[in-house]
Amino acid sequence: MNTNPKQDMPKHFNASDIEQMPERFRANFINSLSGFKSGNLIGTRSPKSKAGETGIDNLAVVSSVFHVGAHPPLLGMIMRPHSVPRDTLQNIKDTGEYTINHICASIIEMAHQTSARYDSELSEFEQIGLTPQRTEQVNAPYVLEAHIKLGMQVQDIQLLAINQTELVIGQVVEVIIEPRWVGNDGYVDIEGAESIAVSGLDSYHSTNRLARFGYAKTNEKLTNIAVRKL
Amino acid sequence: MNTNPKQDMPKHFNASDIEQMPERFRANFINSLSGFKSGNLIGTRSPKSKAGETGIDNLAVVSSVFHVGAHPPLLGMIMRPHSVPRDTLQNIKDTGEYTINHICASIIEMAHQTSARYDSELSEFEQIGLTPQRTEQVNAPYVLEAHIKLGMQVQDIQLLAINQTELVIGQVVEVIIEPRWVGNDGYVDIEGAESIAVSGLDSYHSTNRLARFGYAKTNEKLTNIAVRKL
Repeated sequence: MNTNPKQDMPKHFNASDIEQMPERFRANFINSLSGFKSGNLIGTRSPKSKAGETGIDNLAVVSSVFHVGAHPPLLGMIMRPHSVPRDTLQNIKDTGEYTINHICASIIEMAHQTSARYDSELSEFEQIGLTPQRTEQVNAPYVLEAHIKLGMQVQDIQLLAINQTELVIGQVVEVIIEPRWVGNDGYVDIEGAESIAVSGLDSYHSTNRLARFGYAKTNEKLTNIAVRKL
Repeated sequence: MNTNPKQDMPKHFNASDIEQMPERFRANFINSLSGFKSGNLIGTRSPKSKAGETGIDNLAVVSSVFHVGAHPPLLGMIMRPHSVPRDTLQNIKDTGEYTINHICASIIEMAHQTSARYDSELSEFEQIGLTPQRTEQVNAPYVLEAHIKLGMQVQDIQLLAINQTELVIGQVVEVIIEPRWVGNDGYVDIEGAESIAVSGLDSYHSTNRLARFGYAKTNEKLTNIAVRKL
């Protein structure tokens, strides 16, 4: 029970308060504040070497995938060049292809484990215990265990001058999903498919649908279309 | 019970399948595929007119806010210039300021209702039934009812040539939050604060934490730090 009324008073942190936070504290704090994020495993394959070897599969957990547009179907992803998934960024630049695999509840531990610094000369699939899946559309490996998988072709990579991160924009060229999760109106029930949400740098959440609302009009009450259309 | 084994066979949609989807179907489909998204209300205020009137407050529901960097603390947001929140984008360009207010479970209906085409000459706060909150740090209005609120100053706005959307990057200059949601390590318990996650264009979800993992190492089992640190 809350016996201290002050505990409920919102605190105001200003720019100077944020600047003075210890680095790791600030990283956790700011990474939490954008709200819930997507949780995805990015699959890439290094290019064949001149010696003719096939490439090496790579996997990276990423919470920075976001929607850019539906027509053409585009997704963005922010990559920090000096962070752990640097093999991923290099492979994307070298091959122009990657896969986005929704992390589902049953693989959160393996997904987070990809953030460890594995030997980049070996397949991270093998080191982690996930299974690569190949299709004819893209050379990058999918994660067999994921329930929703997107094959991506790079369209643009730009440096964000403000903090030297790189914005990768890719086009969806393949979607692998069980038809039962795709509604009559195109909405994909990612909750039903057990996709998780991420908060901060390291917290994984399942979800419960509160409502799916119809088109909002100024003179009508909103309708909950979740029951009708899912 | 699933008596049709084919129902469980994943389907492959290729680029041509996606291209041929009806526009609204594709919008729902692609907007679902990036995974869970943040749900925020963007608060802005139009500039004072030459006649000396004060500005008009505006609110827009947005699911495109994402993390760009922690130091400096930066968030991005994709805006479609011709979509409903065009007043929001214009106000941001005119004033350089906006607020990001986490949608919490108790206000999802009002939040979604802001997507209706309200009269832009009147405050959307009044028309929707939410309360503007002012601070000394920013002129843009916060949503009093929200549990986590960020004051933002625009740092950069760039047109993404690939689909003519605009990427707004802002710096966090104020955070309003009850201290009980901020952990000892800076992690903010946005689930505890009842922030919701969005899927697709119109679905709102509460969350349940599955785990919060410690730093991943190649030779150690992951630890669930949720119990210890929250």
